[in-house]
Amino acid sequence: MNFRAQLNDFQFLLTQVINVDDHLKALGHTELNGELVSAILDEGARFAGEIAAPLNREGDEQGAQFDNGAVTTPPGFVEAYHSYCEQGWAAMTGPEAFGGQQLPALVASPFHEMLMSANLSFRIYSGLTEGVVLALRHHANEQLKNRYLPKLVSGEWAGTMCLTEPQAGTDLALLRTKAEPAADRYRITGTKIFISGGEQDLTDNIVHLVLARLPDAPAGVKGISLFLVPKRLENGNANAVSCGSIEHKMGIRGAATCVMNFDAAEGYLVGDANQGLACMFTMMNDARFQVGLQGLGIASAAATGAQRYAVERLQCRALSGTKSPAQPADPILVHGDVRRMLLTQKSLVEGGRLLALKTAQALDLSEQDAQQAARAALLIPIMKAFLTDMSMEVSNLGVQIFGGHGYIREWGMEQLVRDGRITQLYEGTNGIQALDLVRRKLLGDNGQALADLIDEIARDCERLHAYETLRPLATQLAHWLPLWHTQAEKLRQCANDQPDALSLNACDFLHFCAYLLLAWCWLLQAEAAGAMLDDKAENTDFLQAKIICAQFYFERILPRNQSLLQMLQNPGHTVFRFPDSQFAEA
Amino acid sequence: MNFRAQLNDFQFLLTQVINVDDHLKALGHTELNGELVSAILDEGARFAGEIAAPLNREGDEQGAQFDNGAVTTPPGFVEAYHSYCEQGWAAMTGPEAFGGQQLPALVASPFHEMLMSANLSFRIYSGLTEGVVLALRHHANEQLKNRYLPKLVSGEWAGTMCLTEPQAGTDLALLRTKAEPAADRYRITGTKIFISGGEQDLTDNIVHLVLARLPDAPAGVKGISLFLVPKRLENGNANAVSCGSIEHKMGIRGAATCVMNFDAAEGYLVGDANQGLACMFTMMNDARFQVGLQGLGIASAAATGAQRYAVERLQCRALSGTKSPAQPADPILVHGDVRRMLLTQKSLVEGGRLLALKTAQALDLSEQDAQQAARAALLIPIMKAFLTDMSMEVSNLGVQIFGGHGYIREWGMEQLVRDGRITQLYEGTNGIQALDLVRRKLLGDNGQALADLIDEIARDCERLHAYETLRPLATQLAHWLPLWHTQAEKLRQCANDQPDALSLNACDFLHFCAYLLLAWCWLLQAEAAGAMLDDKAENTDFLQAKIICAQFYFERILPRNQSLLQMLQNPGHTVFRFPDSQFAEA
Repeated sequence: MNFRAQLNDFQFLLTQVINVDDHLKALGHTELNGELVSAILDEGARFAGEIAAPLNREGDEQGAQFDNGAVTTPPGFVEAYHSYCEQGWAAMTGPEAFGGQQLPALVASPFHEMLMSANLSFRIYSGLTEGVVLALRHHANEQLKNRYLPKLVSGEWAGTMCLTEPQAGTDLALLRTKAEPAADRYRITGTKIFISGGEQDLTDNIVHLVLARLPDAPAGVKGISLFLVPKRLENGNANAVSCGSIEHKMGIRGAATCVMNFDAAEGYLVGDANQGLACMFTMMNDARFQVGLQGLGIASAAATGAQRYAVERLQCRALSGTKSPAQPADPILVHGDVRRMLLTQKSLVEGGRLLALKTAQALDLSEQDAQQAARAALLIPIMKAFLTDMSMEVSNLGVQIFGGHGYIREWGMEQLVRDGRITQLYEGTNGIQALDLVRRKLLGDNGQALADLIDEIARDCERLHAYETLRPLATQLAHWLPLWHTQAEKLRQCANDQPDALSLNACDFLHFCAYLLLAWCWLLQAEAAGAMLDDKAENTDFLQAKIICAQFYFERILPRNQSLLQMLQNPGHTVFRFPDSQFAEA
Repeated sequence: MNFRAQLNDFQFLLTQVINVDDHLKALGHTELNGELVSAILDEGARFAGEIAAPLNREGDEQGAQFDNGAVTTPPGFVEAYHSYCEQGWAAMTGPEAFGGQQLPALVASPFHEMLMSANLSFRIYSGLTEGVVLALRHHANEQLKNRYLPKLVSGEWAGTMCLTEPQAGTDLALLRTKAEPAADRYRITGTKIFISGGEQDLTDNIVHLVLARLPDAPAGVKGISLFLVPKRLENGNANAVSCGSIEHKMGIRGAATCVMNFDAAEGYLVGDANQGLACMFTMMNDARFQVGLQGLGIASAAATGAQRYAVERLQCRALSGTKSPAQPADPILVHGDVRRMLLTQKSLVEGGRLLALKTAQALDLSEQDAQQAARAALLIPIMKAFLTDMSMEVSNLGVQIFGGHGYIREWGMEQLVRDGRITQLYEGTNGIQALDLVRRKLLGDNGQALADLIDEIARDCERLHAYETLRPLATQLAHWLPLWHTQAEKLRQCANDQPDALSLNACDFLHFCAYLLLAWCWLLQAEAAGAMLDDKAENTDFLQAKIICAQFYFERILPRNQSLLQMLQNPGHTVFRFPDSQFAEA
């Protein structure tokens, strides 16, 4: 079991780096404060560690089972899900008007990260319900809200997102599922694939949000509408929705990924006709943020598991001489190569954690502050793609630190690689996130949100320049900022001159942005740690570790941008001159 | 099934880039020539494609099974193994004196790469036998050779390598298995773990090469001897060797990874007492080369599978406008992001393939040419670690190109990730390869072998500078060569000043070397392709693709060395100042 709750880190980030009390006040929370948040996270860590984590290995071994239309979740999932609802975790983010606690993302996301660290498959069943709540809250009529929201918020019912069809994955323009008007409702017919929790034994009802085409709808994405299709109708009867099979997957084997057949199933229109994609995007945005957190959770479990192993596993002596003479060999953390891997993990995870919290903060403020809404829109694709890409790196380093034992299932490290791998793919592959960043976010507002962000970072660099220990880091980051501007401008130029190069460079640009954002996140953590040390705080090792990890990030991770910059500066014609015939003949 | 034999590429590399005929002459082969080699590889492709590949998916699903000491290999493995022996593939590299065909590595390795592409688990059963043959040929007495080599060479018997114990992985100094003299032989007692093919149902006998300690042997690695311990004794009786269990693993599930118990088992000393590690290294060197090939094989399967998928899968239109108006969407290879991934795969695989062949060439010449022996010793850790690291990148890109379908087992792409992941770990983790490179290879000969290699590359750059199309690439590579020298010198300095930094920087240095070697390999391929185009060769698309891929490598892959260089230039103190307490508290 590799999960261990990183409560000290959450505490540090929420109270010393981000001022959670100020944030709560800005959101109008009067009773909630930092202390209460801390108590909630303590309880959350207990749920993740004592209830969800122990089911993770067997959940992987047994997997979700399919038999004649029915899905059985792995042993213990039903009981754990009931506790999850009873303890109020399901209702954490739901609107108060429908029985939820309406906690902000800044408070909920640390809990969700822990739950994903502990047992990603378990978390998948509840995660999308929150997105369905969000979509219904924003787009459904009062009748649908009143009928469905209370039980979705409490977790008594669960929700799914039904977009993908065999021929329509990234390209929703190709989707074929049909919706025919029938009295006060619609009849939905079609097949959807890759539906997480499309069928399960945790809840009595499942509320599917389904994209489909009305008769005579325009072709392409402008003819897609969103429908609510319940598994059970109001009268308790079964709707014509069935699970045809579940997928056999690399990982998240405890989570049922279903083929769902809609056979003239009864459904209700959500939002306006032909506006389905916009409605779904409310949900999608939340889902992408959640998937970014999933990457972070998996990475955190890999990092903490590897750290503990590196303390315990004795192999060879340090090259500079014996460090633990009383033992037959030194713990492997003495070896430079192992330390490099451990600190790479730690700097990516703890830097990424602050990036996730900053995204949560912007999300929370989105409804009241247009600039924060633009910030959230800009950060979400970066956060989703980067945290999931780095998760793959971090979990693979975990396997590497465990050596051969990392490859054996019983240690759980390889499961993190397999489970985490989905996060780079679902809710839009990371290539799609990168396109979203450069096309919708960067071109959409003429680069304003990015320019605002870079300005804020520049001001932080200027402030931190005054502190001797942080000056080298602040100077280094400040040096990159004009280059960041230039690269963004170049990409915006591409849109006219060489549109295909936009797609070519999008991923590298996203990573380039992310490494600079993490540098900022580390600078702010080093500042906070330094201030606490100046104030004679007690946990000096923790704080020193933060400062050293920041330095490590600048020495060993940020230089990756040297390469990215050089790659981005190539015109990219080469890629399009390559003869397609050679792909076909492979 | 993602495997497709890359016979055109082998043909191009062996005849146009490396002169296989000259190589065979240098080795004294009188009957073997390039044409015959081509015919052998055609047959090899048939074996890999028609016999090994079809067993790969089910081999993964069923896995090797263990029951009360017995191991059953997956369905079809027994029949396929018999064909493998009957068709003479087992005897390919064995010495002629013992019934082998004694083909050089340059000829055998393309076949082995194909076999690994087609079914890595299947190849694992035969791969180590070849290493056992090598170790016995070099270190065993005549009696042992005569008794064991003929059947090992033919494949009638198989061989294993028994090094690891629970407490002794990388650190063989900690190994505890004992050998007690008993009449003309020894009694071996101990437990070995992670033994590939330790038990199986393919062969009547299994010949274990076991590291153990004689009574009163010196402590540490200087007290380790090598023993041959057969599963069946000469009289046909079972030896006291048993398989206690097999591991449940992330991948290579068709290959049995065994816990082997030796309970006063009868064995024979191979080589001199206390010289076991040196003897094992004969085998280990070959095994490391083979593991590098495994990485290449997996990467090749991922690249070809992804290329074919990208031609067939229709999703979205190119950003620059519709490319296939007759179809509902364009094939995904039109998208810059997908092309970037496809060419990253292709440039790593085909660059890596030439690196593997160059290593094979040096290995072949090792016995007759000390400089080539030093070259092989230098290249093996680079080739093993880099080709397996890049394999992970390439197979994960394969999953990414397949999107959600890449995560589903039936497409086989995720299996390549799981199967290939072992190659970064076994036969010495890649961290150990990197230490071998900087300590044994770089410090061992004062950097002479590396200096010779850099000189050769410099001469090639100078020659190619004369060709207009290649000049930019040759200039770019030439620019890196003095930096390569300097970094190597700096590392050699570390050995005295800051030995722990040697370990810290070893992996980054290994990658730095590998990217320059691949640049060289691409320059040579571009040269050969250019020459053929000048000669009006027919396969112009293939040759143009080689030149464009070389350019892509220099534009998009070689720049990674910018980052590595900057990382290597950091002193590295940060890593060792990090407080260990923070690892323990994770």
